[in-house]
Amino acid sequence: MMHIPAVASGETVAVIGLGLIGGSIARDLAGRGVRVVAYDRDLNAVQSACEAGIVRGGLAAGLQQVVDADVIVVATPVDEAHGVLRALAQLQLRARLVVDVGSTKSAVVATAVAHGLEAVFVGSHPLAGGHQSGWGASRAGLFEGARVFVCPAARSPDGTVAAALAFWESLGAVTECLDARTHDERIAWSSHLPQVVSTALALALRGAGVRRSELGPGGRDVTRLAGSSAEVWTPIVRENATAVAAALAAAEKELRELRGLLLTADAGPLAARLTEARDWFEVAGTPVTAPGAAV
Amino acid sequence: MMHIPAVASGETVAVIGLGLIGGSIARDLAGRGVRVVAYDRDLNAVQSACEAGIVRGGLAAGLQQVVDADVIVVATPVDEAHGVLRALAQLQLRARLVVDVGSTKSAVVATAVAHGLEAVFVGSHPLAGGHQSGWGASRAGLFEGARVFVCPAARSPDGTVAAALAFWESLGAVTECLDARTHDERIAWSSHLPQVVSTALALALRGAGVRRSELGPGGRDVTRLAGSSAEVWTPIVRENATAVAAALAAAEKELRELRGLLLTADAGPLAARLTEARDWFEVAGTPVTAPGAAV
Repeated sequence: MMHIPAVASGETVAVIGLGLIGGSIARDLAGRGVRVVAYDRDLNAVQSACEAGIVRGGLAAGLQQVVDADVIVVATPVDEAHGVLRALAQLQLRARLVVDVGSTKSAVVATAVAHGLEAVFVGSHPLAGGHQSGWGASRAGLFEGARVFVCPAARSPDGTVAAALAFWESLGAVTECLDARTHDERIAWSSHLPQVVSTALALALRGAGVRRSELGPGGRDVTRLAGSSAEVWTPIVRENATAVAAALAAAEKELRELRGLLLTADAGPLAARLTEARDWFEVAGTPVTAPGAAV
Repeated sequence: MMHIPAVASGETVAVIGLGLIGGSIARDLAGRGVRVVAYDRDLNAVQSACEAGIVRGGLAAGLQQVVDADVIVVATPVDEAHGVLRALAQLQLRARLVVDVGSTKSAVVATAVAHGLEAVFVGSHPLAGGHQSGWGASRAGLFEGARVFVCPAARSPDGTVAAALAFWESLGAVTECLDARTHDERIAWSSHLPQVVSTALALALRGAGVRRSELGPGGRDVTRLAGSSAEVWTPIVRENATAVAAALAAAEKELRELRGLLLTADAGPLAARLTEARDWFEVAGTPVTAPGAAV
């Protein structure tokens, strides 16, 4: 395997979207001497990042100044990434790599291909962060030990894919390369389903007039993801709607069956299901995402 | 309000069931010079607790030796508490207070009343701990800042109720007195519902072949309670089946509605629901249970 350097000190990275993910990338890169420039529609975020010495300069909304960047990171909500890629396609980029960070990959990879960005674009999805969002929630080291899915297009050059892997690994991430469709199918279960289940539970509790402060430590765990940004998550689950709907239907079925087992004469079948869930919980397997990220 | 001393140094407390809750009570009491004796059907737990210097002596299965205890704590799974109370009712207890720690209260209070223990028994439910169970998971300070529901019987003497409140408050808990029926109705939502939702999610993921190590930090939060003991939780949710079933039906309805909103033309209704969940999450209200208890 050829040696592909990650971003070098003195090179320029443009971060478009200074939220939890984009902001954390900016912090890590700035920490090792990379020149970070950034755009966010929230000018306060850019100003805070500049004042903190993380970002060297803001980008105007047209993004024309990204032509000088060596690497471009698209870290907007997933529905906005399409417009950003369209805008980038109009420019004479000198970037050797463009990555995004969205939780769905098929649609954004298709957009990149449709706009002729296949030579430089590699879809990426870091599994990091928690329910918090925005620049204020960003922090250095967020990707240390985190899993990052890397989804090339069908004809992405090997060198570009290697550059994407090197980029994420330089932030401490554990990368996994897979095609966008497989990613979206898997992530519907492993990420989008827990997200929506947490939201559904929160809405049921809200409907019953139960406040979160009435929950014990376990109940607060289960409802933590319900505190996530609606702006971030609405487009994610809608972009992956078919796969998410199938996963939700499976969860509904399990809930319905457990409900039925509450009232049977024999406690055995319910105990058996709870034991299966516990056995699943305890299966060996070291999480590769940073522990303790979500509070 | 009269001054009721909590357990004094040199007094004897019998702990029946040395799991997460009973074991943690034993540790706190032993730490301030109380003489703790204990029964657990797992003799290894009792032996470990003795070797750790927490428990001074084990009790034989017939529990005859509890007649010398000043306070008795019944910390078994909820379905076993009934048999323990029946056994205690056969003895000439000198205890001024008997408390339990179960997550359901109506049935155990009724059992205590039926067996003539109303003068000394006060139902109790500490909202503490996480998915772990057993003596090995117990720790000193578990109840510091935790909410404990205290559910007297209709004719519990004021002095006995005051003793129960003093007992829990001496462990650092924040007590709340309410009748058992109201407790069970509320806790079906605030505790039993999150528990079963977490289990249902785990079973859906298991069915799809997704391992817990594939989840991000948020998904691991949502599935943490699924790691709880089936032995502890099966009798809890079955004892409170009617209220739990109603809460589960509400969660199923929310899931079904969110699923429907994935595919509507307008993203607005889904975004509105996610925003409602987030607003619920963010409502001010300081949790009174110890943070960070579950890992």
